[in-house]
Amino acid sequence: MDLVIKNGTIITATDTYKADIAVEDGKIIMIGKNITQTEGAKLVDASGKYVLPGAIDAHTHLEMPFGGTTSADSYEAGTRAAACGGVTTVFDFVIQRKGQGLIEAVEGRRTICDPQACVDYSFHTAITDLTPEILEEMKESVEYGVPSFKLFMVYKKEGLMVDDGVLAKALEKSKDIGALIAVHAENPDLIDMRIEKFLSEGKTSAWYHYLSRPEFVEAEANKRAIHWAKAFDAPLYIVHLANKEGLEEVTKARNEGYEIYAETCPQYLHFTNEVYKREDGRNFVCSPPIKGKESQEALWKGILNGSIQTVATDHCPFQSYEKDWGKDDFTKIPNGCMGIENLYPYMLSEANKGRISFNKVVEVCSTNVAKIFGCAPQKGTIAAGSDADIVIYDPNKKFVVSKENMHSDVDHTIWEGIELKGYPVMTFSRGKLVYKDGQFLGTPGHGQFIKCKGRK
Amino acid sequence: MDLVIKNGTIITATDTYKADIAVEDGKIIMIGKNITQTEGAKLVDASGKYVLPGAIDAHTHLEMPFGGTTSADSYEAGTRAAACGGVTTVFDFVIQRKGQGLIEAVEGRRTICDPQACVDYSFHTAITDLTPEILEEMKESVEYGVPSFKLFMVYKKEGLMVDDGVLAKALEKSKDIGALIAVHAENPDLIDMRIEKFLSEGKTSAWYHYLSRPEFVEAEANKRAIHWAKAFDAPLYIVHLANKEGLEEVTKARNEGYEIYAETCPQYLHFTNEVYKREDGRNFVCSPPIKGKESQEALWKGILNGSIQTVATDHCPFQSYEKDWGKDDFTKIPNGCMGIENLYPYMLSEANKGRISFNKVVEVCSTNVAKIFGCAPQKGTIAAGSDADIVIYDPNKKFVVSKENMHSDVDHTIWEGIELKGYPVMTFSRGKLVYKDGQFLGTPGHGQFIKCKGRK
Amino acid sequence: MDLVIKNGTIITATDTYKADIAVEDGKIIMIGKNITQTEGAKLVDASGKYVLPGAIDAHTHLEMPFGGTTSADSYEAGTRAAACGGVTTVFDFVIQRKGQGLIEAVEGRRTICDPQACVDYSFHTAITDLTPEILEEMKESVEYGVPSFKLFMVYKKEGLMVDDGVLAKALEKSKDIGALIAVHAENPDLIDMRIEKFLSEGKTSAWYHYLSRPEFVEAEANKRAIHWAKAFDAPLYIVHLANKEGLEEVTKARNEGYEIYAETCPQYLHFTNEVYKREDGRNFVCSPPIKGKESQEALWKGILNGSIQTVATDHCPFQSYEKDWGKDDFTKIPNGCMGIENLYPYMLSEANKGRISFNKVVEVCSTNVAKIFGCAPQKGTIAAGSDADIVIYDPNKKFVVSKENMHSDVDHTIWEGIELKGYPVMTFSRGKLVYKDGQFLGTPGHGQFIKCKGRK
Amino acid sequence: MDLVIKNGTIITATDTYKADIAVEDGKIIMIGKNITQTEGAKLVDASGKYVLPGAIDAHTHLEMPFGGTTSADSYEAGTRAAACGGVTTVFDFVIQRKGQGLIEAVEGRRTICDPQACVDYSFHTAITDLTPEILEEMKESVEYGVPSFKLFMVYKKEGLMVDDGVLAKALEKSKDIGALIAVHAENPDLIDMRIEKFLSEGKTSAWYHYLSRPEFVEAEANKRAIHWAKAFDAPLYIVHLANKEGLEEVTKARNEGYEIYAETCPQYLHFTNEVYKREDGRNFVCSPPIKGKESQEALWKGILNGSIQTVATDHCPFQSYEKDWGKDDFTKIPNGCMGIENLYPYMLSEANKGRISFNKVVEVCSTNVAKIFGCAPQKGTIAAGSDADIVIYDPNKKFVVSKENMHSDVDHTIWEGIELKGYPVMTFSRGKLVYKDGQFLGTPGHGQFIKCKGRK
Repeated sequence: MDLVIKNGTIITATDTYKADIAVEDGKIIMIGKNITQTEGAKLVDASGKYVLPGAIDAHTHLEMPFGGTTSADSYEAGTRAAACGGVTTVFDFVIQRKGQGLIEAVEGRRTICDPQACVDYSFHTAITDLTPEILEEMKESVEYGVPSFKLFMVYKKEGLMVDDGVLAKALEKSKDIGALIAVHAENPDLIDMRIEKFLSEGKTSAWYHYLSRPEFVEAEANKRAIHWAKAFDAPLYIVHLANKEGLEEVTKARNEGYEIYAETCPQYLHFTNEVYKREDGRNFVCSPPIKGKESQEALWKGILNGSIQTVATDHCPFQSYEKDWGKDDFTKIPNGCMGIENLYPYMLSEANKGRISFNKVVEVCSTNVAKIFGCAPQKGTIAAGSDADIVIYDPNKKFVVSKENMHSDVDHTIWEGIELKGYPVMTFSRGKLVYKDGQFLGTPGHGQFIKCKGRK
Repeated sequence: MDLVIKNGTIITATDTYKADIAVEDGKIIMIGKNITQTEGAKLVDASGKYVLPGAIDAHTHLEMPFGGTTSADSYEAGTRAAACGGVTTVFDFVIQRKGQGLIEAVEGRRTICDPQACVDYSFHTAITDLTPEILEEMKESVEYGVPSFKLFMVYKKEGLMVDDGVLAKALEKSKDIGALIAVHAENPDLIDMRIEKFLSEGKTSAWYHYLSRPEFVEAEANKRAIHWAKAFDAPLYIVHLANKEGLEEVTKARNEGYEIYAETCPQYLHFTNEVYKREDGRNFVCSPPIKGKESQEALWKGILNGSIQTVATDHCPFQSYEKDWGKDDFTKIPNGCMGIENLYPYMLSEANKGRISFNKVVEVCSTNVAKIFGCAPQKGTIAAGSDADIVIYDPNKKFVVSKENMHSDVDHTIWEGIELKGYPVMTFSRGKLVYKDGQFLGTPGHGQFIKCKGRK
Repeated sequence: MDLVIKNGTIITATDTYKADIAVEDGKIIMIGKNITQTEGAKLVDASGKYVLPGAIDAHTHLEMPFGGTTSADSYEAGTRAAACGGVTTVFDFVIQRKGQGLIEAVEGRRTICDPQACVDYSFHTAITDLTPEILEEMKESVEYGVPSFKLFMVYKKEGLMVDDGVLAKALEKSKDIGALIAVHAENPDLIDMRIEKFLSEGKTSAWYHYLSRPEFVEAEANKRAIHWAKAFDAPLYIVHLANKEGLEEVTKARNEGYEIYAETCPQYLHFTNEVYKREDGRNFVCSPPIKGKESQEALWKGILNGSIQTVATDHCPFQSYEKDWGKDDFTKIPNGCMGIENLYPYMLSEANKGRISFNKVVEVCSTNVAKIFGCAPQKGTIAAGSDADIVIYDPNKKFVVSKENMHSDVDHTIWEGIELKGYPVMTFSRGKLVYKDGQFLGTPGHGQFIKCKGRK
Repeated sequence: MDLVIKNGTIITATDTYKADIAVEDGKIIMIGKNITQTEGAKLVDASGKYVLPGAIDAHTHLEMPFGGTTSADSYEAGTRAAACGGVTTVFDFVIQRKGQGLIEAVEGRRTICDPQACVDYSFHTAITDLTPEILEEMKESVEYGVPSFKLFMVYKKEGLMVDDGVLAKALEKSKDIGALIAVHAENPDLIDMRIEKFLSEGKTSAWYHYLSRPEFVEAEANKRAIHWAKAFDAPLYIVHLANKEGLEEVTKARNEGYEIYAETCPQYLHFTNEVYKREDGRNFVCSPPIKGKESQEALWKGILNGSIQTVATDHCPFQSYEKDWGKDDFTKIPNGCMGIENLYPYMLSEANKGRISFNKVVEVCSTNVAKIFGCAPQKGTIAAGSDADIVIYDPNKKFVVSKENMHSDVDHTIWEGIELKGYPVMTFSRGKLVYKDGQFLGTPGHGQFIKCKGRK
């Protein structure tokens, strides 16, 4: 026994109960009443605290070349911030270059990530060039441990977009091989049409970023993606869903028995499109943009009634000077916001304020992610045999987010000034204390690549 | 008084009653009990017969260059067949060539049609090149008398397709100027993907025409078109709707208060996709293809509950030798079927067999078309002052459709052998008898261009 | 020829056109362009006016014993007011007494009504005692000319209510014999429970009349009645539907293909529940009560999209002194409002102001009523051969409703002060001028009983 | 440590993992990898076995006077059978007699149950007489530990039924005091109407039991109950839901955010209404009756998509001679079937055959019941500190149900001959082995009353 966490209240997706936890070799080896600390084992007294499985961020873009620059957090900075926010596993996106093999693409990123990773990580691969060979290689990727693939329904000019035929082909294939297709769903033609119009009218503030891709632009693509998934009876995962109408289609499809998953993000849950009218509106520019109040309320309801299964960050920050490129032209603002360190604290604070249950937060930020992407029960729960990815949460701690107390490399945060009720006080990654009371205590290279299992 | 029709049962979209009709100078001048035949007036005794407004075929492609040939019915042949089937007004499609002006395009077709037309006609213009200038010219077209425009959501390779941005632009504009946007709704990427797949597998029979664009391929585009129409709160007319799921979206939108119209065709109401398994399956090849039984039943229900407002033919026939081009490869079959002479007889026969009311047939084949496209009450009803476009229908006449008793130039008919209960025995076009008991009695050039009114 | 109406614009449910009308022996004998006035025929110049079919009020309670008194308008007064409001046929309710035969009940009322009726009339019979004999007699009633029966789902204490088993039995029977079942749908237990509660709390103002039977109390019974109609696949007519949720169920059932009809009333279209907070709130007390703004808007939308087929009055007025009985206790207010003279003027004024089309008003106030209850085309349209029940409407006349310009026997009107755009200037009942420019010109006893046809 | 269960696969509602369990004083004190058996502790080797939380049967009628007799299983026999089927907690129904206090009623049943109970138990109270005093006493009952109340929407003649006003009152109250209202939802008037009809026609076989209360009779009451729950925004639990249409309303309400729960039973999941055509159809007579195939399939789908939260038995068996009373008249058959010993084996067998996951079975048969009725985490999960209610399940054991291998006092079983894949081999109730390999090893009086917590 290396570590014993005593007297805390353990909260899983299902249960809430008081018990002690013993850890050895990075695994939880025992959960019990009154576990005796053995010699040499470290003791953590969690009296009055909650003991949670570490969060799993299903959606990050670290060190990603995009929009003429690279997202501001390196793998080291991003996973350091993750650890400090209670995230113990990160799913980052590998973007396949045209002509590049899938496993080649993944291994390329592993080489970069491995020496830097402060917590465990895995990948989804964004397919941009689905040749017949790549279609075949998808199966190898599943066996390799990366069974989830994202397709962009937008970013036509950027060369990332695939058309509906390709999406359909990928869905059909995924069903055969036990893979999971994810989509970024927005409609490119409408966006281009509206951008062209706004620019021609001299409407260039961040507010027009929102207006160039409002609710109905995202909703259409949500509905279309779900339509194809239903047509081919293949599972589908919609990343960063942010609008009410699209969510209603998710709900409908799930009621009909289809395996449709929806992920939303904290920025869509806390802010509304009003932020784009702010002086610093450009800092909130991401795609899909944050929507109106009605969508925000629908998203919360979707979490409660099970229509939304995961909350992840789409963490893809840029420095202020980069965001400033679009000061006078919203089309020049690099798209993306930060959140990896805010995900769990924000959601747990909302639970603590009574909006949802703590079990539900664990479910959507951790357990469901592990189950959907194939790394449960190694990750995503507190159970004997699981990795000791554990967060100790103090429900009484008050915390005000500020650039100063964040651990990312970014020079600002959209969460500045947000008051949270309760905050993580310790994070363990496979039994190793990587964060305590505001201090990062981890080591780059500690994090390991997690092989995920396909659906077959 | 030139003509009096006595003792018939007049059937309009609303009423059924016995009365006489007097006609002068091509107009109905009187409807009454016991109208006295004046000297020189022709008398028609309609005892035991129904007296109906002539049908209006909202959707034809006469003499249209397509698929490497030209549709087999010239304006003369097509409008001759129309007259013999009780159709007294034809809406044909003008296809704008790239760079061509809208009114230039219409006038070009008028020049061809005018000397040939045996019944009255008007046009919808299919816009294929929506430049800023064309966007402006739409208003002029409305004033000219052609306020309806079709956009193709398919036929990418053929250069007819517009993308969603263009469709949205047209919808926005239509709302301002009182125009009506119509769409051919199918998804091109799915069609291409599936065709490529089938051809690579050596699957080339007519059945694979159906499988390359089954229910879900049409339904997606129906739903997408409706989505944009709702987003911009613009009216929308969906041509040749042939599937259940798309129809459900029409119903939903109409219930929500949106002005969404749906047209279906007799071939979708009478046949099912089983025809594509027949030896002569290629003769039934049209796009969208005929769907399964479930869709057929939904379409009939849609007519009954008002979700479908019009039934038109999409008349676009090709000769057998042309259809034969695709004997061994469904992609080489020219797309299109005949029906202009079958529309009214088929629908009235269904009424006569009890499936729907005669009033409903008049409504969907005539009155609604006139109202939606802006030529009521000149067309589409039997009322004092309206054009004397009148069909005398014998409910007791038995009729079996065959190539021999049709009046088109086409050398076959998909309706061969169909038994009808009741049949038109006379057609009057503006008071002139153009058809009687199987004989065409009209004259090319009699037909006139009908100016339609916009919605403002 | 007794009468010719020249130069008017005829408006039917479908058509709008200029023509003249000739009348003889109470029937329309001719509609034409330039009809020549024959000797002895009266001439009416309708230049600048609209010529409409007379309205048919599908729902009145004249001279009805109820709530310890009798509704204030006798058959004479009620049909006089009808004539002055453009209503040329009235469907009144016969209430079967326990043990009384159906035809006995109808003939009892005919005896009272016949000498008084100023316009034509027919009946629905409210069945309160459905014995096996009465169940059999329903068929005879259909043949007699009264094929529609109402069942009360409320008024338990008053002895009018039937339970769900009886309702189901009547629905089953109606299907066999071509009858139509109508329901007054509210939930009695909830009303009683809430009344008891409010009285015990000393809450006795008219506002509590509304709160004792709010939206959800009516909606439940709407849904339940529709459920049974669907279960037995029998047609159903819901009288005075006044709430949004119930209407949604009507829409849903109609989309599914069921023959469900909904009637609403002008008071639900013009007022909201706010009236019950007024000093004179008791005057607006009727059941179901007027609902909130959201329901009002839904009802208008329902008229537009066809979910509501008829607008009738539920005319059941009481004198001020009778309404005053409930000044201090809403349960003592006799239930019912007036409207027979306001129906057509109000609805046509709304058309004139642009909310709906004139054709739609004719459809819901006249044509649909005649078709649903089996007296078309004798009533409900302007066509050769139909009864000359004609209203001449001046779209430019301004009119402010007041007790002084109404023709009922009631001493007040809830429509006091309402400004209308346009107003009827003449009403003809079977060719006889019964109203002109504010003056009643008819005669008691002129009105005839109209035999209605069943649905088989 | 009294007991250690080693090498099994633990399955909870969320997790599946291999670990050992240590039990002391009736509680799980430890879950871990390689727990060392301490001296005196009993060892169970669960290699190759699944270790599950005991099932909680949310719906039983033991020793209940009904239909002129008493249900055939005493508390002893019923809880003995429960133990042998892996059920470790039973929720039985207390029926309030007219005039009886709620706690008085509960304590009366406790006196009977306590000396007999072989496993733990709790109660729901069926309120039949909701006086103002009883309305007040509901709060005391919540505090006493019985926070759930059932209302019968049927059994009018039997004096059990309450009307909609009473149901509404109870729902309103429940919201204030944190109680949960459950309903038996069927429509009494329709049932009576149809029974009368069938008897008068001499239709008396068990098939007419079904036909007297088919899908639409239950669905109406489901919809009505949900309507009231939504109107008052109170939680609602629908017992033994057995039809598709009612389930759809549950799904709709849950999507809208309402707290509506649905329970179904194994008999509805395995059989269809075809059983009523069997020679022994009367043995399957229960209310609501088993429905058609379409409903059966909908129920399974409802379990999968979360619309149904619990599966319970409605265990209420009668002896063959009692069932025989209705041999020639279905109205004389005592209503009720057996299932307490079949619930968990049947559902787990279905999981083992691949229809649903084992986690889902644990969720609906145990965890959700505990959470909804307020006894989690003491019951319903396998976690440190929870009661050691544990079932050892052998997935490879074959089992054919027969009267001979059941432990109830009933002389037959509707499950006769059913082949199961896998079967429980041991049941522990608070650490005590009460069942092993077909043998009941428990003791009457071991079972304890479980106090449940209200929702506030």
